[in-house]
Amino acid sequence: MSDTSVTSPRREATRQKLLDAAAQVFAEVGLDAASVEAVCERAGFTRGAFYSNFETKDELFLELAGRVSLGRVAAVRDRVAELERAGAFADVPSNALQIVQQVLDMSADDRLGVLLLSEIRIHALRTPALAAAYLAQTDEMLRSVAQIIDDIGRAESFTFRLPPLDAARLLLTVWEGAAVRSVMAGADQAELRRATNEELARVAQLLIAPSEG
Amino acid sequence: MSDTSVTSPRREATRQKLLDAAAQVFAEVGLDAASVEAVCERAGFTRGAFYSNFETKDELFLELAGRVSLGRVAAVRDRVAELERAGAFADVPSNALQIVQQVLDMSADDRLGVLLLSEIRIHALRTPALAAAYLAQTDEMLRSVAQIIDDIGRAESFTFRLPPLDAARLLLTVWEGAAVRSVMAGADQAELRRATNEELARVAQLLIAPSEG
Repeated sequence: MSDTSVTSPRREATRQKLLDAAAQVFAEVGLDAASVEAVCERAGFTRGAFYSNFETKDELFLELAGRVSLGRVAAVRDRVAELERAGAFADVPSNALQIVQQVLDMSADDRLGVLLLSEIRIHALRTPALAAAYLAQTDEMLRSVAQIIDDIGRAESFTFRLPPLDAARLLLTVWEGAAVRSVMAGADQAELRRATNEELARVAQLLIAPSEG
Repeated sequence: MSDTSVTSPRREATRQKLLDAAAQVFAEVGLDAASVEAVCERAGFTRGAFYSNFETKDELFLELAGRVSLGRVAAVRDRVAELERAGAFADVPSNALQIVQQVLDMSADDRLGVLLLSEIRIHALRTPALAAAYLAQTDEMLRSVAQIIDDIGRAESFTFRLPPLDAARLLLTVWEGAAVRSVMAGADQAELRRATNEELARVAQLLIAPSEG
């Protein structure tokens, strides 16, 4: 017990390597079909290293899901701060779509990322504790995106046809749907980005109210 | 081999019971964690009955996924025909949203249905043959919904702000996203329908162009 309460840099590096390897294996074959052996082999560690860090595969999955969600929220926050520093909001609305796209275009920008998010989602559907964490982190991400939308609306004369939070939810839903369809159709990373951009552009047009209204 | 080419009513009934039981078990615990034993126990059959109908669990899953998709397409077609007979399209656009909702509101109208669709979707993401079938059947469903949208547009003076196929895809994406979020939040069947209706209503409003345009 005392061993796990102190996290040395070396120990944290081992944990992170195990989590990175597990992310790949879970994305490729799913949590249930993934063996601890396969995760260790991918990470280049022994089973001993695994079990000195995680009691079970499920414990690792819960930590991974938490890190992925927190990572997405942090990525949204960082991207927003970065765009604000760069003065990107001064050019809206011509840039509005790109801003939202840049904010959403994060951890799941390739096939494995989309698979891992889908894997986390289906386990969240079955596991109430995981569902609560998933929904809380999605809500935080939605609030960040809603804030951007609100800022864009205030900076310009036009208004959006939905409240910022509903608009953010719609954009996120469309982004996820387009990403899943693209991966299923065998798209590479460039095509995945092109397809999600195209669908986001369509919805952004719907969201912008006519200027005379 | 000759045994499987002749499907007696009794044999088909056994297959259907195995498929129904498997749908429940796969939805509850996922394909990989579901054992043939668990499916047999749920269906009330022996392992012998299973293996005289399916060579593997994966073969059963492929057939189940195909039946679910075909069932959804058939349900859309039937519902459209039924609504046309009932003269429902005469009352659009006041009824437009309900019509689309009634069309989409099919096999995945409860927690297990949403879980099963999600399970099929993630395996389609990983299995090219399953992906092709999934996308083909989704396309057919989208074309049916697009036809309804087109009919509604023609019957009325207003136009939609997206082409029918894009509008159908957006509605289906929003429906799926809302259904998943509701199930994750622990919604019962009534709340699931209420939440998906509410989100569809929002998007339907966005899709309808101002009458003066």
